[in-house]
Amino acid sequence: MDKAEILRLVETQQKRYSLPQAFYRDPDIYRHDVEEIFLKSWLYAGHQSEIPNVGDWFLFEFDEESVIIVRSAQNEVNALLNVCRHRGSRVCLESSGCSKRFTCRYHGWTYDLAGQLRAAAHMGESFDKSGISLMNLHVGLLDGMIFVNFAEDPAPFSLVREGLADCLEAYGLKNARVAHRQSYPIASNWKLAVENYTECYHCAPAHPEYSRGHSLAYPEARSQQISREVMARAGVCGLSDKAVSQMYGSAPAFGADYFFERYPLLRNHLTGSEDGQPVAPLLGSIRDFDGGTTDVQVGPVTFGLLYCDHAVIYRFTPLGVNSADCDITWLVRGDAEEGKDYDKDRLTWLWDVTTQADKAIIERNQQGVNSRYYSPGPLSEMEEFTWTFLSWYLQSIKSAA
Amino acid sequence: MDKAEILRLVETQQKRYSLPQAFYRDPDIYRHDVEEIFLKSWLYAGHQSEIPNVGDWFLFEFDEESVIIVRSAQNEVNALLNVCRHRGSRVCLESSGCSKRFTCRYHGWTYDLAGQLRAAAHMGESFDKSGISLMNLHVGLLDGMIFVNFAEDPAPFSLVREGLADCLEAYGLKNARVAHRQSYPIASNWKLAVENYTECYHCAPAHPEYSRGHSLAYPEARSQQISREVMARAGVCGLSDKAVSQMYGSAPAFGADYFFERYPLLRNHLTGSEDGQPVAPLLGSIRDFDGGTTDVQVGPVTFGLLYCDHAVIYRFTPLGVNSADCDITWLVRGDAEEGKDYDKDRLTWLWDVTTQADKAIIERNQQGVNSRYYSPGPLSEMEEFTWTFLSWYLQSIKSAA
Amino acid sequence: MDKAEILRLVETQQKRYSLPQAFYRDPDIYRHDVEEIFLKSWLYAGHQSEIPNVGDWFLFEFDEESVIIVRSAQNEVNALLNVCRHRGSRVCLESSGCSKRFTCRYHGWTYDLAGQLRAAAHMGESFDKSGISLMNLHVGLLDGMIFVNFAEDPAPFSLVREGLADCLEAYGLKNARVAHRQSYPIASNWKLAVENYTECYHCAPAHPEYSRGHSLAYPEARSQQISREVMARAGVCGLSDKAVSQMYGSAPAFGADYFFERYPLLRNHLTGSEDGQPVAPLLGSIRDFDGGTTDVQVGPVTFGLLYCDHAVIYRFTPLGVNSADCDITWLVRGDAEEGKDYDKDRLTWLWDVTTQADKAIIERNQQGVNSRYYSPGPLSEMEEFTWTFLSWYLQSIKSAA
Repeated sequence: MDKAEILRLVETQQKRYSLPQAFYRDPDIYRHDVEEIFLKSWLYAGHQSEIPNVGDWFLFEFDEESVIIVRSAQNEVNALLNVCRHRGSRVCLESSGCSKRFTCRYHGWTYDLAGQLRAAAHMGESFDKSGISLMNLHVGLLDGMIFVNFAEDPAPFSLVREGLADCLEAYGLKNARVAHRQSYPIASNWKLAVENYTECYHCAPAHPEYSRGHSLAYPEARSQQISREVMARAGVCGLSDKAVSQMYGSAPAFGADYFFERYPLLRNHLTGSEDGQPVAPLLGSIRDFDGGTTDVQVGPVTFGLLYCDHAVIYRFTPLGVNSADCDITWLVRGDAEEGKDYDKDRLTWLWDVTTQADKAIIERNQQGVNSRYYSPGPLSEMEEFTWTFLSWYLQSIKSAA
Repeated sequence: MDKAEILRLVETQQKRYSLPQAFYRDPDIYRHDVEEIFLKSWLYAGHQSEIPNVGDWFLFEFDEESVIIVRSAQNEVNALLNVCRHRGSRVCLESSGCSKRFTCRYHGWTYDLAGQLRAAAHMGESFDKSGISLMNLHVGLLDGMIFVNFAEDPAPFSLVREGLADCLEAYGLKNARVAHRQSYPIASNWKLAVENYTECYHCAPAHPEYSRGHSLAYPEARSQQISREVMARAGVCGLSDKAVSQMYGSAPAFGADYFFERYPLLRNHLTGSEDGQPVAPLLGSIRDFDGGTTDVQVGPVTFGLLYCDHAVIYRFTPLGVNSADCDITWLVRGDAEEGKDYDKDRLTWLWDVTTQADKAIIERNQQGVNSRYYSPGPLSEMEEFTWTFLSWYLQSIKSAA
Repeated sequence: MDKAEILRLVETQQKRYSLPQAFYRDPDIYRHDVEEIFLKSWLYAGHQSEIPNVGDWFLFEFDEESVIIVRSAQNEVNALLNVCRHRGSRVCLESSGCSKRFTCRYHGWTYDLAGQLRAAAHMGESFDKSGISLMNLHVGLLDGMIFVNFAEDPAPFSLVREGLADCLEAYGLKNARVAHRQSYPIASNWKLAVENYTECYHCAPAHPEYSRGHSLAYPEARSQQISREVMARAGVCGLSDKAVSQMYGSAPAFGADYFFERYPLLRNHLTGSEDGQPVAPLLGSIRDFDGGTTDVQVGPVTFGLLYCDHAVIYRFTPLGVNSADCDITWLVRGDAEEGKDYDKDRLTWLWDVTTQADKAIIERNQQGVNSRYYSPGPLSEMEEFTWTFLSWYLQSIKSAA
């Protein structure tokens, strides 16, 4: 689809309606999404606890890109493009490891932990290693969470870090550790997955497990007495009741969105678990369960849920025009021991069952959108934030034109 | 391939030769086939006996389209596009079922059996449900056989129904029921599958099982004594010996083709079975086996074989430029009981073994056509009807240009 | 990618650097590769010993093409396109066989071993069989090795045969036979596979098994005493120490390249095997192991290794823009018996383990080249021949423009 046609679709888009089919199928639009959104946004790569020691690394993969996230000799976090500067081979082959240097197994070119080329045989006398290194990406750190940005000159991550500093403090995520990480591939365009995440209109019909405990499933609940009671307890428990919303259209710079809001759980739920009872030790400096939970967002496609005893981080990335990855990380206190302080199955139950349901829902949405007779339909009052996302998305297309 | 090139191929096509490679491979030509042929033709969806009660439904799937074929509260047959009018999710997820209403499992939008929206939560006060319904397709009924047409203003199905009424009467297909239904995916362009179906030049070399009993495999047989004898018996057995041929170029309107002709079986065969002996009770008002069988066709891609004791319906649809579906339905008398009145394996044996052989043949045809050195070859005297099909096909391209 | 863009890439190519990504991914460039290189080059199809008797045949498959390599009634080798001249079906379905005539199983058209149509039913009185035959490809024979060329007017194969006659004589390949043949599919563009084959820069880091015995892995070894000693023994053993190099830019005509050079094995290795010890009887008229091995090349994508006791033939062909086939044939003396004179596992061990390693290496190379941040890197002194290949390749693009 050529640019003029795409822009015509943007111009004729009806407000608070879903998008035309082309946005979920067209390869040119998909290319825009990858180049103009994902390659220019801060993307969650992982947590510092996954690379505790110098030389520890793991791969962050996106589209055709493979990035080595490594703890450097200076104890910093580097993001190195996993492409040898000789003839382009992948350098690191496993999904994680610990290395003093990175040696390409094709021709033996060897790089240090900062990506600088250190050895290459038979290159002739005039060859100058000093100018050659694995490409470095920009890295942003937020309480132990590692974000990367493929852009040469990305939006400053400090805007995000400073905007969320107070809100996040009590959760002590810097000292958390990964209890479980899992990838859920979804046979749909990435936007259908984000649309699904950004509205709770589907929660009551589709997620009985979630809806038992979370007030977001019921718009009327948020103005009730329960909300006031829980928010009042937040301070006692050591939590901030501050809310910030600098998302999408209101983000401080493209790809550096952030959001934080606490809201009540329902019916004696203390956390997001099958029975509402705690599944891990209290996080950070939190003193007690306040009966609430937090929605957080960093960048346009990374979301989080902060319970008092654990955190869940969601990242959506495209795998193709009709294929997306939903990557979920469960974090607990850094000193919590599996089997003793928490049970992994109990910890992950709610968001595993909910994500599996979402995967099915989203894939059926894509199937229906594929019909040539599909036409965009009206959004409900509970899909206002989805419309915020879609408006921002359409604006990104106008800006790129 | 652009339109001018395609038209040049049509103009330079040699009469009674197979088509150039592009017609079996080119994505633009494939798009024409779907949009101009399949979406404008009457397509067999199923038989009324598959949905005997109000609320019974099954899905008819074609290309990216999913259609709910449902028996309505008024005891009629509706064809509803299986795409929610909210954000486009599939509404029915299984291949068949029985429902009082159709509730989309994504956000709970609920439709009645006519497709009218009946419930949708949180849509605001100004929302008017009355103008919203699942899209209805045109439906045509022919003695219990359900046909659908995706066009807004299709050729009237009454032309077909009236043209075939007398011929079909004795078979009582309205009161038949589905004994078996099976899909045979074929790795070829759909036209190679239809070409195969429309000629019996390959029967003798490729289908020994069929050729034992069917005179079509031997052109000389049709003018022999056997033919006259069998046709003479038709009337005694309660069958019409009338033949109609309003196919392809002679169809009354695009996509509303029909054809009916009875011809002799061979060597004491009474029906299409492994040994030529009956496999089910006589259909409709047929009084005895007359030693013949009927070829029938409705629309450009649905074919049938009417034996005295059972009917076989063949539908060809594309699954992609090099992938087609051959969907076969075996019908028996409505009151015939499996295990007592018929054995399913005996009933389906001949056309299962023949279709599996055809699948292999057609796929090897596609493989050869894929060669850049393939060139169209001359058709035999036994492929005259295939040429009728191809001429009509080429004309459809000229008309669309 | 349009021609102007491709040519711009060729013009701006830095000498002795790897190629830009487009050459490994772009479908238009891939089409050039198939049409201008593979369809115009002499390609190894197999060895005469695979079809010892009249009517013996095997299929040579390339891209969408299937070719019947058959021993004719006149005891010659024919290459017939496996596409029926009627409606294009594949005629031979198995990978090899022995036939008096070729009968298409679709409609029974029957061809003789020269491809001439001999029988076709129901074609009418005016039909003239005599002008119809399976398409014949040009065939070149080199000491029993069968090469085919899809071009109408290919470079004369005699140039190759005459150029290599003296060099090859001692190996007696005409009387050799196939001990094993195996296909290794590689998920990469074909050029990455040929690049890999044309340099031994990767041998020391990636192939410990090969590097134990082959001096090519160590550039310094070739000028050492060992080289002189081994070459001196060649004559005593009945081998020619002649070298010819008419490859790529210096080939006598496009697609008719050839190359022959003998070089020393290392550390008491007598042949290419796990322990360096013989694995089969001496080939042809060779009198003893001289401690050397030969690299041979015929056409741009067929390579060979001639040890004193066996030969290994490598052919690279594309299966798609990012998929290639590496077909390997192991040849031994024609009178050698498996189990008695040689053990197949010992015979094939070295190049099986080496090819499996190469497959992994090449696939990781493609993965890295797929990165949008990949940029061509400098070649080493040990990749000079790879640069010869790449220069020729780039020239083929300029010539075709």
